[in-house]
Amino acid sequence: MKKFRWGMIGGGKGAFIGGAHRIAAKIANSFELVGGVFDVDFERAKEFAREEDIDFRRVYPDIDSFLLGESGMPVSERIQVVSIVTPNFLHFVHAKKLLSKGYHVICEKPVTLTSSEAIELKEIAEKNNLVFCLTHTYTGYPMVREMKHRIESGAIGTIQRIDAQYLQGWINPIIHGGNAKLAVWRLDPKVAGISSCMGDIGVHAFNMIEYTTGLKIKQVLAVLSTLKPENPLDIDGNVLLKFDENLTGVIRSSQIATGEENNLQISVYGTEGAFHWEQENPNVLKMMHEGAPFEIIKPGYDYLSDFARESHVLPPGHPEGIYEAFGNLYKGAAKAIRGEKTVPGQFPGIEEGIRGMRFIEAVVKSNSEGNSWIDL
Amino acid sequence: MKKFRWGMIGGGKGAFIGGAHRIAAKIANSFELVGGVFDVDFERAKEFAREEDIDFRRVYPDIDSFLLGESGMPVSERIQVVSIVTPNFLHFVHAKKLLSKGYHVICEKPVTLTSSEAIELKEIAEKNNLVFCLTHTYTGYPMVREMKHRIESGAIGTIQRIDAQYLQGWINPIIHGGNAKLAVWRLDPKVAGISSCMGDIGVHAFNMIEYTTGLKIKQVLAVLSTLKPENPLDIDGNVLLKFDENLTGVIRSSQIATGEENNLQISVYGTEGAFHWEQENPNVLKMMHEGAPFEIIKPGYDYLSDFARESHVLPPGHPEGIYEAFGNLYKGAAKAIRGEKTVPGQFPGIEEGIRGMRFIEAVVKSNSEGNSWIDL
Amino acid sequence: MKKFRWGMIGGGKGAFIGGAHRIAAKIANSFELVGGVFDVDFERAKEFAREEDIDFRRVYPDIDSFLLGESGMPVSERIQVVSIVTPNFLHFVHAKKLLSKGYHVICEKPVTLTSSEAIELKEIAEKNNLVFCLTHTYTGYPMVREMKHRIESGAIGTIQRIDAQYLQGWINPIIHGGNAKLAVWRLDPKVAGISSCMGDIGVHAFNMIEYTTGLKIKQVLAVLSTLKPENPLDIDGNVLLKFDENLTGVIRSSQIATGEENNLQISVYGTEGAFHWEQENPNVLKMMHEGAPFEIIKPGYDYLSDFARESHVLPPGHPEGIYEAFGNLYKGAAKAIRGEKTVPGQFPGIEEGIRGMRFIEAVVKSNSEGNSWIDL
Amino acid sequence: MKKFRWGMIGGGKGAFIGGAHRIAAKIANSFELVGGVFDVDFERAKEFAREEDIDFRRVYPDIDSFLLGESGMPVSERIQVVSIVTPNFLHFVHAKKLLSKGYHVICEKPVTLTSSEAIELKEIAEKNNLVFCLTHTYTGYPMVREMKHRIESGAIGTIQRIDAQYLQGWINPIIHGGNAKLAVWRLDPKVAGISSCMGDIGVHAFNMIEYTTGLKIKQVLAVLSTLKPENPLDIDGNVLLKFDENLTGVIRSSQIATGEENNLQISVYGTEGAFHWEQENPNVLKMMHEGAPFEIIKPGYDYLSDFARESHVLPPGHPEGIYEAFGNLYKGAAKAIRGEKTVPGQFPGIEEGIRGMRFIEAVVKSNSEGNSWIDL
Repeated sequence: MKKFRWGMIGGGKGAFIGGAHRIAAKIANSFELVGGVFDVDFERAKEFAREEDIDFRRVYPDIDSFLLGESGMPVSERIQVVSIVTPNFLHFVHAKKLLSKGYHVICEKPVTLTSSEAIELKEIAEKNNLVFCLTHTYTGYPMVREMKHRIESGAIGTIQRIDAQYLQGWINPIIHGGNAKLAVWRLDPKVAGISSCMGDIGVHAFNMIEYTTGLKIKQVLAVLSTLKPENPLDIDGNVLLKFDENLTGVIRSSQIATGEENNLQISVYGTEGAFHWEQENPNVLKMMHEGAPFEIIKPGYDYLSDFARESHVLPPGHPEGIYEAFGNLYKGAAKAIRGEKTVPGQFPGIEEGIRGMRFIEAVVKSNSEGNSWIDL
Repeated sequence: MKKFRWGMIGGGKGAFIGGAHRIAAKIANSFELVGGVFDVDFERAKEFAREEDIDFRRVYPDIDSFLLGESGMPVSERIQVVSIVTPNFLHFVHAKKLLSKGYHVICEKPVTLTSSEAIELKEIAEKNNLVFCLTHTYTGYPMVREMKHRIESGAIGTIQRIDAQYLQGWINPIIHGGNAKLAVWRLDPKVAGISSCMGDIGVHAFNMIEYTTGLKIKQVLAVLSTLKPENPLDIDGNVLLKFDENLTGVIRSSQIATGEENNLQISVYGTEGAFHWEQENPNVLKMMHEGAPFEIIKPGYDYLSDFARESHVLPPGHPEGIYEAFGNLYKGAAKAIRGEKTVPGQFPGIEEGIRGMRFIEAVVKSNSEGNSWIDL
Repeated sequence: MKKFRWGMIGGGKGAFIGGAHRIAAKIANSFELVGGVFDVDFERAKEFAREEDIDFRRVYPDIDSFLLGESGMPVSERIQVVSIVTPNFLHFVHAKKLLSKGYHVICEKPVTLTSSEAIELKEIAEKNNLVFCLTHTYTGYPMVREMKHRIESGAIGTIQRIDAQYLQGWINPIIHGGNAKLAVWRLDPKVAGISSCMGDIGVHAFNMIEYTTGLKIKQVLAVLSTLKPENPLDIDGNVLLKFDENLTGVIRSSQIATGEENNLQISVYGTEGAFHWEQENPNVLKMMHEGAPFEIIKPGYDYLSDFARESHVLPPGHPEGIYEAFGNLYKGAAKAIRGEKTVPGQFPGIEEGIRGMRFIEAVVKSNSEGNSWIDL
Repeated sequence: MKKFRWGMIGGGKGAFIGGAHRIAAKIANSFELVGGVFDVDFERAKEFAREEDIDFRRVYPDIDSFLLGESGMPVSERIQVVSIVTPNFLHFVHAKKLLSKGYHVICEKPVTLTSSEAIELKEIAEKNNLVFCLTHTYTGYPMVREMKHRIESGAIGTIQRIDAQYLQGWINPIIHGGNAKLAVWRLDPKVAGISSCMGDIGVHAFNMIEYTTGLKIKQVLAVLSTLKPENPLDIDGNVLLKFDENLTGVIRSSQIATGEENNLQISVYGTEGAFHWEQENPNVLKMMHEGAPFEIIKPGYDYLSDFARESHVLPPGHPEGIYEAFGNLYKGAAKAIRGEKTVPGQFPGIEEGIRGMRFIEAVVKSNSEGNSWIDL
């Protein structure tokens, strides 16, 4: 199969996240990088292109010249899909321009800074019949997909309790003065939006809940902490959740849980069983049963759903990491761009982006309005 | 050292919890069972006494005859300390009578059905200068004690996040009709009090937080679930916590977390490090540091605090279980009765009982008053 | 049920192992300590008796006066069963005298210093129709018993690979000069017999293999290490095993595996599945299947065999420790003494003692004879 | 930095291992695939080239035309380094021709079928001053590298015990008739060489021991099992090891350990501490200390050695998998080809290939010569 002609906005030389996207694209094996706006520094952009053996004519200094240059090419040569890996506050403007001109978009998280921006992107993408892939990476893990498949197949009955957490500790030394400079940037609402902890990682826990269960959260009640009065943004918090019918849940999230790395976990309990999954040991899915031994489900076996099996290319026992999960999103996006039938959940789209923004907005509102319940 | 003359109210033949108290007493090696009100069925009480080689004259049919009989004995022969292992709603009346007559008391959890009852017990115990030990068993684990010691010694700096959970699944088959008879009894407010989940197990998570950190919870905001309208008591819930100064936390608790057994866990994060402990693997204490490897702390080593070392009699690597933890409470109570100096936290007393009752009452109130913050 | 009149040889005041036996007896709830030879120091023995409320007339200065005194009592008062917890080299002489006079015996490990001594004990016990219980404690764990039951029921098909290990590190500081005094005692062949590492702990791994699989080891090939030329006894080694038909295995054992505590593990692989168990996490049994998820089996469930269920008195999720395992052996011995039907494997007997001594002798011989295969 | 012009022998369309090499090369970010002998079927080779956007003039039908074609090119365009991912028995002939003509070689494991072949390759590579990289992937894990660094820095003192294992179960259904066809191929000495289990995976455990400790194994004593008489090759075995001075060890390996996946583990015990690492959870390194808490060492921290830090590009808490480890070998090879200074152990070379072949030959000899000690 011929690969897609692929472009990038941002992510050039030395950009960690850009490299991750390129490795993911290699794992998906369906994208060839042929051009883009790789760097705000145009000389660096060209240096990057030289190393990657990319034709200099397709190295652009900004998004407008990109659109001008590519649109002038014959359709058979034009870039087909573009990954946006710029700073967060630029996602919206870049995505809007690209979608308006007919490019499929793969976009880093968070999709935008507000839910209304995300809704606008959705409308354009739908009107132009374009794929929008949001890189909520954790949904690419095979065992998360198996969990989703089994819950939807009724394996644990009706859900009656949901817990999710995303605990990190990296803000701890910053907030306590270890690195004042970082603090300025990381906790600046102009750059980061209305929330730090919930916007950056709480939203992953939120997405994981809606992804694996297929349920929609209706209301949230939040208590957020900035730890210090001079810090404008939340760096820790707990969010109570209400779903349809009698079901409640909780999201716990922190950036000052000292010693924690990327401790994203989810537990879903049903009338007949339960699932537990941890991001730091992603190839293990624990399934609990009413009155029977626990099961440990692992990737690579015939007993798995098609969805999980296709999301793991290595034989059993070879640990796959975050790049492989990332690659699965690229695979899903490639399928969708090709117009192939995709299983729901193969990659997060603009809908997930909108939900995420609404979650963040509602959480911040609940906290500032006396820890009251806010509709999503 | 001569052993204490020990009595029991309840806990006779076939009573699981009574047997546990006797094994704990054997581990503490300071109590000799010489009499009591072992059973509501007096014949069974005597049968039990025969097996245990207890003098029939000290087998009593009820608490009043117990008090009459024992008080008639010379002080050098009279029972000195009594364990109460009757159904919950009888704890108060038994404890009150015993304390009033000068007996030290070891009482099963929950101490009473209301906080005002617990306060009354406290006043009597203090007036009569008696020891009251409440068997919050989990505080007897050596690694819980090491955690308490280290937090109080400043090992993790100032606390900035606290998470605790107690998840069980055993009500699941009952609530869904698997065992209607049990449901009637277990979820009957007359017998169980105002709360099932929070009263039975949430309060352990509460106690564990206050025990290990030395902090007091000031306010709670709770969301409880009865799952079904016909069920009058909570069987699942989440409780947000406020402490002094900017510190928040959360307790998650459930009796319908299908597949969970006694999954009590606590995480305490400070400015300089953190602790994590799990009841189902009680001999492991995980200590996290800012920017350094995690440590796995285990019982039996010279590097531990005196408090933890004295709470573990076996050499390293011999797993101790719940009986051993239980035995530690009995050891602590024995020390206190002897008038020896005890480390704070060696056994839970009436103060912990009052705190627990207040927690339960506040949680239920928050839930019924629109999920608002309630003072403790 | 009336308790057995129980005696002890050794194990008095301050003796750790004696206390463990008394707690085990309490858990089994079938033994009442009424006399014995508690201490070589007779005054200390009496002091112990005073604390335990034991009749002074049944406190004896030595084994001969014990036999004289007890045999003079009416059968209905005479001690029925005696636990031997003296130093190893005295086990044989005490057990022989007790069995010859008609007392059931519970004996600490190792049974004797040679296999011929153990065979002699067997002959006497059989002739006098007496129970001999050897406290190989680890066979008392519920999950070890479930493993045995399932293997014997064919759950994993035909066995094709066996691995066992017992790794400790406590000799490390001694052998490197940290504690010369201990070294003299612990590594003295006159006291410890012909082997340190294999005799003390390797034999547990050996026993665990034969216990759980029901198979007999036919030959061993051993490489042992004393680490230093001046040390006469093995403190580390590996033993290759041959069973019937094409099956091999290996036992790894060490007392200088720095940092290890009591790391006893066993893995048994069959044509259709496998089991893995670890002593330091004894309430978890991992069952592997050909082409299906792993299972985690835990104590306290209805799905377990009768044998495992009866070996665990607490509800699921309450961690049981070494005392509880120990208690199970006492329960098994009590059943056998009462003449009740016992499941094979309910307690280790003299046969297991003989097998263990033969293992130790064969291992030492293989090592000294050029690492050749030696029949067991 | 300009990327190397890279070729492949084998590994074209649909070849799993070829894809893994390409992803590893992408992670290393220093290789651009420009030509090769991608497939024995030349049409498929061209189809692969079309998808990968490779110039058809550099797609060759066989090794000889490859050498002819590339050698005819100007040095500035000629392929510089070639990866060999053909079936095992072809490694030698391809590597020999490539090295003789001046190409750096990256070669799949096992390097050759005999140690004499490997020695021949070494001589050619040295004479021509070429890099030879052998893809013993597991040595690319950051935590394996940290372990190596710390052991060599004396962190655990003098080594006194070594255990390694590599347990798989995938031959189990084949050997028992589940897949007769596979059995013929996998267990055919003409294709697989003199050993199956030890040659394929035991050698990884061997390599891991010599890699992490820097020690050389002097002698082996092996017991191998073919399970069935009609099977000519070992599929299970245990190998006792002798090192210099009083140090022994053991390698356990199996392809019929039912349920095991890629359970490679290594434990190294020294006078002052120990390390334990498991391939299936590769981002955790357990460090044990004499009389102090265990440490859990993880990737991505400043406290690590340069070697480990450079081997992990993601922030702490992002699980890396086998591709990332593989990528580290490609990074190391690239450094060496560029003539940069490399830390010893950055990639396995021909020396490790020779050692591995000698291990396999010695193990098979020991087994067939009555389980005697054989020099390496």
